[in-house]
Amino acid sequence: MALIGTVAAEVLIPLAAVIGILFAVLQWYVVSRVAVPPHDGGGAGKGERESDGVDDDEEDGVDYRGVEARCAEIQHAISVGATSFLMTEYKYLGAFMAAFAAVIFVSLGSVGRFSTSPEPCPYDAARRCRPALANAAFTAAAFLLGATTSVVSGYLGMRVATFANARTALEARRGIGRAFAVAFRSGAAMGFLLASSALLVLFAAVNAFGLYYGDDWGGLYEAITGYGLGGSSMALFGRVGGGIYTKAADVGADLVGKVERNIPEDDPRNPAVIADNVGDNVGDIAGMGSDLFGSYAESSCAALFVASISSFGADHDFAAMMYPLLVSAAGIVACAATTLVATDAGELGAADEVAPALKRQILISTVLMTAAVAAVTFLSLPRSFTLFDFGERKLVKNWHLFICVSAGLWAGLVIGYVTEYFTSNAYGPVKTVAQSCRTGAATNVIFGLAVGYKSVIVPIFAIAGAIYASFRLAAMYGIALAALGMLSTIATGLTIDAYGPISDNAGGIAEMAGMPRRVRERTDALDAAGNTTAAIGKGFAIGSAALVSLALFGAYVSRAGIRTVNVVSPRVFVGLLAGAMLPYWFSAMTMRSVGSAALRMVEEVRRQFDEIPGLAEGLAAPDYATCVRISTDASLREMVAPGALVMASPLVAGTLFGVEALAGLLAGALVSGVQVAISASNSGGAWDNAKKYIEAGVTEEARSLGPKGSEAHKAAVIGDTIGDPLKDTSGPSLNILVKLMAVEALVFAPFFAAHGGIVFNHL
Amino acid sequence: MALIGTVAAEVLIPLAAVIGILFAVLQWYVVSRVAVPPHDGGGAGKGERESDGVDDDEEDGVDYRGVEARCAEIQHAISVGATSFLMTEYKYLGAFMAAFAAVIFVSLGSVGRFSTSPEPCPYDAARRCRPALANAAFTAAAFLLGATTSVVSGYLGMRVATFANARTALEARRGIGRAFAVAFRSGAAMGFLLASSALLVLFAAVNAFGLYYGDDWGGLYEAITGYGLGGSSMALFGRVGGGIYTKAADVGADLVGKVERNIPEDDPRNPAVIADNVGDNVGDIAGMGSDLFGSYAESSCAALFVASISSFGADHDFAAMMYPLLVSAAGIVACAATTLVATDAGELGAADEVAPALKRQILISTVLMTAAVAAVTFLSLPRSFTLFDFGERKLVKNWHLFICVSAGLWAGLVIGYVTEYFTSNAYGPVKTVAQSCRTGAATNVIFGLAVGYKSVIVPIFAIAGAIYASFRLAAMYGIALAALGMLSTIATGLTIDAYGPISDNAGGIAEMAGMPRRVRERTDALDAAGNTTAAIGKGFAIGSAALVSLALFGAYVSRAGIRTVNVVSPRVFVGLLAGAMLPYWFSAMTMRSVGSAALRMVEEVRRQFDEIPGLAEGLAAPDYATCVRISTDASLREMVAPGALVMASPLVAGTLFGVEALAGLLAGALVSGVQVAISASNSGGAWDNAKKYIEAGVTEEARSLGPKGSEAHKAAVIGDTIGDPLKDTSGPSLNILVKLMAVEALVFAPFFAAHGGIVFNHL
Repeated sequence: MALIGTVAAEVLIPLAAVIGILFAVLQWYVVSRVAVPPHDGGGAGKGERESDGVDDDEEDGVDYRGVEARCAEIQHAISVGATSFLMTEYKYLGAFMAAFAAVIFVSLGSVGRFSTSPEPCPYDAARRCRPALANAAFTAAAFLLGATTSVVSGYLGMRVATFANARTALEARRGIGRAFAVAFRSGAAMGFLLASSALLVLFAAVNAFGLYYGDDWGGLYEAITGYGLGGSSMALFGRVGGGIYTKAADVGADLVGKVERNIPEDDPRNPAVIADNVGDNVGDIAGMGSDLFGSYAESSCAALFVASISSFGADHDFAAMMYPLLVSAAGIVACAATTLVATDAGELGAADEVAPALKRQILISTVLMTAAVAAVTFLSLPRSFTLFDFGERKLVKNWHLFICVSAGLWAGLVIGYVTEYFTSNAYGPVKTVAQSCRTGAATNVIFGLAVGYKSVIVPIFAIAGAIYASFRLAAMYGIALAALGMLSTIATGLTIDAYGPISDNAGGIAEMAGMPRRVRERTDALDAAGNTTAAIGKGFAIGSAALVSLALFGAYVSRAGIRTVNVVSPRVFVGLLAGAMLPYWFSAMTMRSVGSAALRMVEEVRRQFDEIPGLAEGLAAPDYATCVRISTDASLREMVAPGALVMASPLVAGTLFGVEALAGLLAGALVSGVQVAISASNSGGAWDNAKKYIEAGVTEEARSLGPKGSEAHKAAVIGDTIGDPLKDTSGPSLNILVKLMAVEALVFAPFFAAHGGIVFNHL
Repeated sequence: MALIGTVAAEVLIPLAAVIGILFAVLQWYVVSRVAVPPHDGGGAGKGERESDGVDDDEEDGVDYRGVEARCAEIQHAISVGATSFLMTEYKYLGAFMAAFAAVIFVSLGSVGRFSTSPEPCPYDAARRCRPALANAAFTAAAFLLGATTSVVSGYLGMRVATFANARTALEARRGIGRAFAVAFRSGAAMGFLLASSALLVLFAAVNAFGLYYGDDWGGLYEAITGYGLGGSSMALFGRVGGGIYTKAADVGADLVGKVERNIPEDDPRNPAVIADNVGDNVGDIAGMGSDLFGSYAESSCAALFVASISSFGADHDFAAMMYPLLVSAAGIVACAATTLVATDAGELGAADEVAPALKRQILISTVLMTAAVAAVTFLSLPRSFTLFDFGERKLVKNWHLFICVSAGLWAGLVIGYVTEYFTSNAYGPVKTVAQSCRTGAATNVIFGLAVGYKSVIVPIFAIAGAIYASFRLAAMYGIALAALGMLSTIATGLTIDAYGPISDNAGGIAEMAGMPRRVRERTDALDAAGNTTAAIGKGFAIGSAALVSLALFGAYVSRAGIRTVNVVSPRVFVGLLAGAMLPYWFSAMTMRSVGSAALRMVEEVRRQFDEIPGLAEGLAAPDYATCVRISTDASLREMVAPGALVMASPLVAGTLFGVEALAGLLAGALVSGVQVAISASNSGGAWDNAKKYIEAGVTEEARSLGPKGSEAHKAAVIGDTIGDPLKDTSGPSLNILVKLMAVEALVFAPFFAAHGGIVFNHL
């Protein structure tokens, strides 16, 4: 028998989660020691603050107290804007959550005609299981729990980021190493907080639900799938709403500021600049946090659900059953060790050490995690056991599961490195895109699209390889474990993901607060590396989403009682074709939403420049609040239609066209959505860094294309602007589309199986 | 029994084909009566030509004999450039054809170990069928026949178009109605020639092969599938090569001419202008002709192959077996009647009558064809019969087949009308794209991409509806018939498709020959309508390709002996995912090829403007030949890699990963490729017409965006340039990708079934 028993599992999982939370608090505490004066600007009487190490202030003749006060003010404005947006968003989402929980309860309850008496178990008719009504109630409760955790994760992430941005800017005066440490520790605070609380809440829910369910593990883990659905639906609205918010502001600010008025990025004269910085926090931080939380919750739920119908479930082997959570727990510890390498193995000295340091984090966490997975696998699992593989029994050995988890983990590394190759300006692809700016915006866009398309090839082969290996070895359980493997280093992934927007914000604050050019150059260097890590993070998010949704798809097929999903049957094929279309429909909506909102923003910014006397000269203050309101209103209004499309499609397909058409729809959306998402993210990343490459002018060739304001640079800015909605709105939302549709199908599977297919049954 | 017997079928099919060919010759004769002086410019002594009706010449002070001589010269230059490109291309393709025919022969021959003795029939083991070696030889022969017919079709189309372009320009002096008639009749000459000869050659091949095969219809129609493969492989190279040719020249000419030098489109001072006009003929005419020929050949082959294993085949009911060809034959007659409405029901009077006249053609042909299909169905088919539906027998009634053909036919109409809505500047989408130019190129591109994505929705539902109906009623035979139904009006489709580039060329010739502005405005009006019909034609091509490749896919699955293509199996899913990636890989290659070739063209054009004294002022002649050579070399070199990707993928997948992985690959490429193709074509069409909308300045709003050279117009030109490779290279090539991979899999199915799956069988 395995060495980790029930009691050990019950202790180790919450212990790792608590360690992760303490680690996050520690990082936050270190960051908080960088002092920022109170935002009311009352800096008077605080002159006794030490200014040693701040190398620029005196010599540049900058009033450092004034700078710090302005920093505090700007930080406050960003924080207020982000909080007010999220609160408004969450108000609407609260209403949606309540309504959707009711839909879940009613439709799942209807399967057993709302009877309260126990039913024969689906996988063992001799035993009695809890009634469908109980599953309906617990699924709805799990949904609410997942949604709440997601919302809290996003919110806390935003708080951390808006706490850290000004501190990073202030530390940048003391050197790039100090600034990097602040931004990185803040990212870690967010990453560990989120990963640990996600694990802890899920673990608590399993134990709490278990009090009612007793040994009906099938029903228990069916109900737990609601947790994934809740997490992912909030993530959808968070990503879409936040994505529209940030890109409407960003595109609007750039179109007037950089293109028409020729003023620098983040210039305080630009009325949209605060909205732009708020957007980074609500889109890239809160949205991304919810997104990865959703992936994590779904892959855990998929793995638990599939495991519950394996011999683990039949034999009630709790430690083996908890294997997915043990893997995640091990991940938290491995990532904490990885973080210490970045924060405590010496300070970075130069700008060109930033990107390698971040890349090293991914590699180290992958290597450490591989060892941790081996330990967990061989300690917690029986040597061999059986799985249900669509009606057939399949014998699986414990080392098979080690391969499955590792396949996902290392596929993630491959995706990360390939993404870096296609989006970092250190390599050929981005340089080619930059060179094509010489002949104007049109060739820039053509080459950028081509780079995005090309960047799909290797990640797809990596995902396909992981799928084939884990599918062959352990069927759908293997896929779920591969997804978990890719996400097991989520704490490190989130750390370097959150680091990017924090640095971006710090640069904005440095510019607006009037810090010297040298400081801005340091934050720019941090930000450029952040662009690439953002693309890598998106690559992970998409790759794990592909695996997660395949696992959920498999669980759905099992639960809906479908024998085979045969492509050569009319229902499945029609579903497949329509599903492959959904990412396009969705992207059409989000692209158009960003475009329209940006147009309104442009009009407002132009109006302010025209109507506020002295604004262009910096003599009068712009009206930031109106721009914040435009972004807020636009994103709240525009997130409804794409959100409804994603939430309604599985319900409509399942109810009207039946479980097989829905299976086709899910598979089609998955295989098509992954491609669109990867290419959109990477085209956008390549354009962004091609522009930065020209601006930085580090090589001979880059200088021949620049400087800022040259024709080639203008062409690069156009490409960057086109890439904004692709890489920050459409692309990252698509991975939620594929996951969310799959988990929704899984949750509603009994309803569709009982009542679905109204239309096709009559044709 | 059915009223049309074997003898009647043997007479009616060739009769309709001959009628079609005579009709084409008649149209050509009418066009040829517009006199063009010999190209050597020896116009002296020809002054006795009547000039009545030429309303512009005298009053504008234009020397009409000089104009005519220049027309002839330009026409000659275009014709020489196009002929020389096609001849060089065909030389390489000839070598490829020979090599690939050998591959077919060897691999299919190896299935039966090159034995010459008869074998048990696959669907009736009691009877003897022809050996695999014979099938290998006849398949290779059919491949060569299809390839040759495709090449001849493309070549003849190009000859017709280069014969018609100058004549259209000359007739435009006499009014828009006369010019329209010439362009339209020329299109019809091409359309009917191609549709009729495709039918005639296929019919002859069936009869000729039948002399050897006797009553082994299974073997006969297996061998005939090579005809589709030949047609489609030539179409691939034609589309890709021609597409790169035309867009390298077009993008190169625009980038320097319109953007940098501010000279009009088709200005004779632009060195790339002849290459651009040659490109229209080798890409849009020859490439498109080969493409639609390929679709037609493949859907006929798929229908015949599936029918051969139905009760038609078992009972040797030749008239019923020939039902697909009878439908095509009826299509030729229905289209001829449709054409007479356009050419003989009165001349068009005004520019705004052009687009409705073309749209009417599609509607009329669809209505007439529906009646013709009904007649053919009820006269040639038994009242009911059985089909093989993946191992099961399915009873089908003759009216079921009428529904199948009609479903395809009317889905085509829906696709056509939706495409028009999204790409014509009479409707909202293009106007929104035009308005977004007000804020620059970035918003133009964002909105244009969104329009392209959105335009996918309804066509996919139309295709899905046709698939569901025909699949349910008559399994894969129904799908093949739906494809044939959509293509049954191919003669009319090709007519209005070819009309576009002919008008485009006529406009170029009018500009270069120095005709008055009024003439150019007339050709521009013809061309604008042609842009939309080109988009409609692409919609048809993609829609029919989707249906055709599904039918081929079904035939492949039958022939490879696969029971179910289960998505929830590792091999199929991995294939599905990788297949969905292929359109992106392919597009990355073609986009990049166009981009690189255009960059070289830009450098050459810039060089000429810099180095040839007096060129910008029109005092010196540019060196057109170098630009023609750049396009020729680039397209021949760059078509190899994407061509190899498409041709090799099914072979690699089938040989290394087996028949199931290949089935997944085909399905994935199909459902993903259709979306990419539709969105690329329609984004491109929308950008092109948004630019034309601003240039034409017909509405108040359009005038506020213009005139030519305004900032909004410059933004529109950038969008148009980005759309060029999307709509004329990547997009239309993708429908060949999905068809060709499917037909190749079908042809090689016995080989894969016997020897495939080397890698997966060992894992």
